[in-house]
Amino acid sequence: MKIALAQLNYHIGNFESNTAKIIDHIKIARKNGADLVVFAELCVCGYPSRDFLEFDEFIELCETSAQKIAAECTDIACIIGLPTPNDKNEGKELFNSAYFIENGKVKAIAHKALLPNYDIFDEYRYFEPSTEFSCIDFKGHRIALTICEDLWNTIENPLYVTRPMDILIEEKPDVMINIAASPFAYNHDEERIEILSDNAKRYNLPLLYVNNIGAQTELIFDGGSLVFDNTGKLIDEMPYFEESIAYYNLNEKATITFEHPSTLRKEKQSDIEQIHRGIILGIRDYFYKSGFKQAILGLSGGIDSAVVCALAAEALGPENVMAVLLPSRFSSDHSIKDAEDLVKNLGCMHETIAIKDITNAFEATLSPQFKGLPFNIAEENIQSRSRAVLLMAMCNKFGYILLNTSNKSEAAVGYGTLYGDMCGGISVIGDVYKTQVFELARHINKDREIIPENSIIKPPSAELRPNQKDTDSLPEYDVLDKIIAEYVEGRSSSATIIKMGYDEKTVRRVIRLVNLAEHKRYQTPPILRVSPKAFGMGRRMPIVGKYLS
Amino acid sequence: MKIALAQLNYHIGNFESNTAKIIDHIKIARKNGADLVVFAELCVCGYPSRDFLEFDEFIELCETSAQKIAAECTDIACIIGLPTPNDKNEGKELFNSAYFIENGKVKAIAHKALLPNYDIFDEYRYFEPSTEFSCIDFKGHRIALTICEDLWNTIENPLYVTRPMDILIEEKPDVMINIAASPFAYNHDEERIEILSDNAKRYNLPLLYVNNIGAQTELIFDGGSLVFDNTGKLIDEMPYFEESIAYYNLNEKATITFEHPSTLRKEKQSDIEQIHRGIILGIRDYFYKSGFKQAILGLSGGIDSAVVCALAAEALGPENVMAVLLPSRFSSDHSIKDAEDLVKNLGCMHETIAIKDITNAFEATLSPQFKGLPFNIAEENIQSRSRAVLLMAMCNKFGYILLNTSNKSEAAVGYGTLYGDMCGGISVIGDVYKTQVFELARHINKDREIIPENSIIKPPSAELRPNQKDTDSLPEYDVLDKIIAEYVEGRSSSATIIKMGYDEKTVRRVIRLVNLAEHKRYQTPPILRVSPKAFGMGRRMPIVGKYLS
Repeated sequence: MKIALAQLNYHIGNFESNTAKIIDHIKIARKNGADLVVFAELCVCGYPSRDFLEFDEFIELCETSAQKIAAECTDIACIIGLPTPNDKNEGKELFNSAYFIENGKVKAIAHKALLPNYDIFDEYRYFEPSTEFSCIDFKGHRIALTICEDLWNTIENPLYVTRPMDILIEEKPDVMINIAASPFAYNHDEERIEILSDNAKRYNLPLLYVNNIGAQTELIFDGGSLVFDNTGKLIDEMPYFEESIAYYNLNEKATITFEHPSTLRKEKQSDIEQIHRGIILGIRDYFYKSGFKQAILGLSGGIDSAVVCALAAEALGPENVMAVLLPSRFSSDHSIKDAEDLVKNLGCMHETIAIKDITNAFEATLSPQFKGLPFNIAEENIQSRSRAVLLMAMCNKFGYILLNTSNKSEAAVGYGTLYGDMCGGISVIGDVYKTQVFELARHINKDREIIPENSIIKPPSAELRPNQKDTDSLPEYDVLDKIIAEYVEGRSSSATIIKMGYDEKTVRRVIRLVNLAEHKRYQTPPILRVSPKAFGMGRRMPIVGKYLS
Repeated sequence: MKIALAQLNYHIGNFESNTAKIIDHIKIARKNGADLVVFAELCVCGYPSRDFLEFDEFIELCETSAQKIAAECTDIACIIGLPTPNDKNEGKELFNSAYFIENGKVKAIAHKALLPNYDIFDEYRYFEPSTEFSCIDFKGHRIALTICEDLWNTIENPLYVTRPMDILIEEKPDVMINIAASPFAYNHDEERIEILSDNAKRYNLPLLYVNNIGAQTELIFDGGSLVFDNTGKLIDEMPYFEESIAYYNLNEKATITFEHPSTLRKEKQSDIEQIHRGIILGIRDYFYKSGFKQAILGLSGGIDSAVVCALAAEALGPENVMAVLLPSRFSSDHSIKDAEDLVKNLGCMHETIAIKDITNAFEATLSPQFKGLPFNIAEENIQSRSRAVLLMAMCNKFGYILLNTSNKSEAAVGYGTLYGDMCGGISVIGDVYKTQVFELARHINKDREIIPENSIIKPPSAELRPNQKDTDSLPEYDVLDKIIAEYVEGRSSSATIIKMGYDEKTVRRVIRLVNLAEHKRYQTPPILRVSPKAFGMGRRMPIVGKYLS
């Protein structure tokens, strides 16, 4: 039996394009002699469709699409994922399901049993867990079909009290197929391989695993579909961050062979390389799927906006990126020169708009109210917000989307101006620590200097007052980033972090800043998620409370 | 046996103040001869503590507080709610639990079985559902103790496949106690009474129900704890929107009597009266719990900002409200006069800051880029955003929190400027439709004219271009609000709404606008929730997708 694995980029709620893409790949698979073609979890509607799953019409459109797909499968079988109604009068209204389609009809349905409901996942919000399992017979093979998290219950640390494969294995399947929507984080590829390998070994069965690819606003899916033999050995790995279809022969003794050159990665990609590829896909899909072409951003001469500009130029083409220099009286000459050099290196569009007259007008207008009071954060923020108003005016006039250039370290401690530099349609590096931004800049420059060396080596500064440096208000970034990671990703208490050897006063101050910035982060753009714990939908904190410190 | 029900206002993560408040009320209950005092769900840490529940330290602090409370209970019993670790090595790490404390010790623990995971609820994110249930014997009575949602599984439309009371009833309890954190919506009080009454009748047992009160950022808890006899008759109702303690005698035949004058409401409060009280509590707790005192807002002369100003003055005192008139060249004379009249009626602080010089500076600065292009939404938004920069500068200089004045109709269709009038720390009327804002204004004016009649009767306008009216771009609000409600709250498709008799073109346009505004709503402040379906944490939609229409 020849099985095609199709890892494709779906568009949430775009039934027309998703259905057309699935049918196209059924035709391709047929032409290549496949008996069965396997698509990813919830491919019909896209993952995550979120509260659109609560609309009856949305669920009906899923079924209509599935019927169109079934009509195409007269001489080839396929597996597709879609939400289906729970007909019992109890529990949630839907299942997260897989259709096994053969001879133009739905021959079998598998429902997901283990529903992730942590970090960015909300599956209990919509779905009832399945309690019934059975294998599917096809062409002399018996398939144990499961959906993503169904294989994610580890022996050491079981997240769930049941394990669907423990039930399915009693029917003596000779192969496992798992369809998934497993979002990207720079370390998640290795975790996936480990958990899936463990399943293949535990059940002594080969395993074919199909993942989604493509970005859905903040969530990036990296593909990298996987094939294991019954010893748990990874025998093939489909490409990461791109659409692909590949063919595998399931032989009589349930061994797997394939004819194409193996795409197994020779070595693990570095974290930064993965982050780079993830962000490029994230930007591209955000623009493509929302029907926009051109980005705008403010270029300060600093490293963050330089990196975002370079990434945007790579993702959208430099001709679609408008970089705006917005110097104030505090902008240093080298900053302006660094920004100009970057624009030259990239070949993107650019404008220079000085903000002096505007900030003067704000200060003059407010002089009756601010009379006698010293320059402080109010005036600093006026600069940042004036820039945002200018950039948004350009968006409104010309149809750009503003890219946010805040990094994760700033987002964590609230080192940014709400309605100022925290604006944007999408945050490009909001899940990348400042120390990683430096690495990313070096990575972008690996073949030629794109980001001016000076932007990389000079001390970071917001340039909102004379001679300001980030380290005036914050610890050095190498210390700051580690404390933030311990608190945000490790969920460690200040006591624990202090015990690790960090300065007590610094730790307490950083954690306090992280907590106090919740109200700011609540109003920031969606952040492209590249780490296991990004700010946004995967981290849900109270705004008004008294916090740990 | 005398049972005290204590409905109190907790502060998330403020273990010190929550514990002190609980202990104070144990002392008060003891002084009043109570045998048992019952506090609300998760009272120890506050509800919803959200992802703080993922911090080990947070859970340890809950247990430490519980032990302090237990030490106080040497001669009185109490029931408190807190998260507790799940000791089994499978499933989620926590239970949502109730401690029954007697003789200074935890005598029994009940875990919640039915975990709401819809709308604003995320309980499966943290908690494992309980599968074991047993009653608690105390002073000759047998108590069936459950937690909130445990009683929420209706016969007609069961949300869950189990029903804890069906198991507990086999131990022949003579009373039910339920501790809850049931958030306010203007129609939720009646639903609660109906469901709880149904439980009392079904199990033929009296029922004492203790709810939380107080606002936690966007979520408002309205109290209104309830006592039913075994026929399902509501025999007492504690006050709404305020802290309270009340005493009930559970007699030998499990009948309930009480000595205080009944606080059973003679008639249902109107929706608008409830919304009014809910918002006042919401504003007050937002400021109090975040340690701020003073609010600022922009006053346009229109009804929305007038209503918000009046509500803020009531919640915080007029001396703590700064109303800023920010006229532009498009502001009409009557708008300025209406705003001035309001300020006079309320006696709040006020400033007038004309934005002309600032918008002129923006337009002059952008003239090279905008040369030859007509005035459009770019210039309109510059006005709105200039006002936001001014208001935020006042916040930064003087320590105000900016109140957002958008209503639900605007929030729905995106009729507002991101980083302009959509700014603010908290959205006061973002869950109140424009048609309800008019009702709210009338309600506020019921004793004397606070909101100038002219603000109520004139046609709504954003005044961002000459002679602009909302109805230039939007349908009449009475039609618009109904279509939005059908789509957002009813989750009806356009086809269904059109079948109800609404104009097809209007319906499709409104739904399209609602969908397109997702990216704006993502970045708006938390919205005080007063309806069963508010924008914010209870409605989670994709931003980039192709939508229903």
